[in-house]
Amino acid sequence: MSITTEPGTIEHGTVEQGAVEQGAVEHGAAEQGVVQHGYTADKDALLKRLRRAEGQVRGVARMVDEDAYCIDILTQVSAATKALETVALQLLEDHLAHCVAEAAEAGGPVAQAKLAEASAAIARLVRS
Amino acid sequence: MSITTEPGTIEHGTVEQGAVEQGAVEHGAAEQGVVQHGYTADKDALLKRLRRAEGQVRGVARMVDEDAYCIDILTQVSAATKALETVALQLLEDHLAHCVAEAAEAGGPVAQAKLAEASAAIARLVRS
Amino acid sequence: MSITTEPGTIEHGTVEQGAVEQGAVEHGAAEQGVVQHGYTADKDALLKRLRRAEGQVRGVARMVDEDAYCIDILTQVSAATKALETVALQLLEDHLAHCVAEAAEAGGPVAQAKLAEASAAIARLVRS
Amino acid sequence: MSITTEPGTIEHGTVEQGAVEQGAVEHGAAEQGVVQHGYTADKDALLKRLRRAEGQVRGVARMVDEDAYCIDILTQVSAATKALETVALQLLEDHLAHCVAEAAEAGGPVAQAKLAEASAAIARLVRS
Repeated sequence: MSITTEPGTIEHGTVEQGAVEQGAVEHGAAEQGVVQHGYTADKDALLKRLRRAEGQVRGVARMVDEDAYCIDILTQVSAATKALETVALQLLEDHLAHCVAEAAEAGGPVAQAKLAEASAAIARLVRS
Repeated sequence: MSITTEPGTIEHGTVEQGAVEQGAVEHGAAEQGVVQHGYTADKDALLKRLRRAEGQVRGVARMVDEDAYCIDILTQVSAATKALETVALQLLEDHLAHCVAEAAEAGGPVAQAKLAEASAAIARLVRS
Repeated sequence: MSITTEPGTIEHGTVEQGAVEQGAVEHGAAEQGVVQHGYTADKDALLKRLRRAEGQVRGVARMVDEDAYCIDILTQVSAATKALETVALQLLEDHLAHCVAEAAEAGGPVAQAKLAEASAAIARLVRS
Repeated sequence: MSITTEPGTIEHGTVEQGAVEQGAVEHGAAEQGVVQHGYTADKDALLKRLRRAEGQVRGVARMVDEDAYCIDILTQVSAATKALETVALQLLEDHLAHCVAEAAEAGGPVAQAKLAEASAAIARLVRS
């Protein structure tokens, strides 16, 4: 977890957002620049996957519109759902590996808040 | 569930598609007309919901593109997933209430095939 | 759910239960005997699977009690959850193939009620 | 997240287990004592919940054995599944808040391994 922050850049999961505003200060540079998150390195892959998921959802609508067979539509809905699930798991993994790990290193209430926030997100994901 | 199909129309869940081609004959008229499925009556509602889901997925992509906070993106992904799940459950309910019910009335191997097909779709949905 | 069946047999998913009491008459024999459900033929397999699931849950408790490693416990929880999911899908498949199919053949409000009930059960399963 | 471990005790999520054996050294005392994990503080609540889940699974078996109505059995299966899900989420939350947070503080390959392991566990949970 080596973080070489250049001016104006917050590497790996900015802590300045959400419920833990004060965390930003600890990583400095929040005021100047390009915000980067845990998923920054995977951004292109995520966007590509999301474009495909969007196309799949549009495909489902087209199938309904063209009176396709129910079961075939359901198969396509499952594919779109799986694609979104993969996106969610990637975002979560990146978030843990960067934002949460960084907050944990910093420790204190910022870390507590980040961990509680991540656990709540996981619970939402598991239950959805 | 007695269905008096007028020419050119297959009411409620055509059985002529998928693995049970021969079912069509029993309902006649497959050659002439507007194909209707279990979800036909819910088509507008389904399409509306799918447009919204598509917009939500596009919203997720925009958030990633604009470097939004990981947890906020995850919340939006969950919303899109839930929307798709609702679409799937509606399609399945319509499918059972029409296609499967109709096949069950007809009985025989057509009914068996339809029921097995529906159960497989449910399993995919539960496991996705 | 108190069922006082007199001598006799109701094959495949008694319709005399739940919201659709009157359905029983249509299948006759309600007065004589052993109640059978869609899952009757799979009963031994289901019971075996459930005993295993019960053992898995007990295994999870033992792991917690003996301070096993969190991730190893989670793996065991997943195994138990999967076993229960398989039981649920089997029950549902049997229910559709017998109770629901039989009600659909009978038609009318009994069929409607059975189908709505099955769809609600599927939704609970998908969302759990 | 400063942990002052007394002799013979490893507080909060031992790192000496699993794939990251070397982590143990950093927390010392692995050789002498009571192993504690992230879930140690929640142990009683977890065990109570697991006993209840076990009873629910046994209840499902009894219902099958006594020929209960399919849909009623499914409702009970869902209750058991939800109970296990709650246990899993609690274990995961504790694991993140202790084992993972601690590893993140330590940093290096141990932290990487812990984070990857946690992400894999989350993926299994979401997909089960």
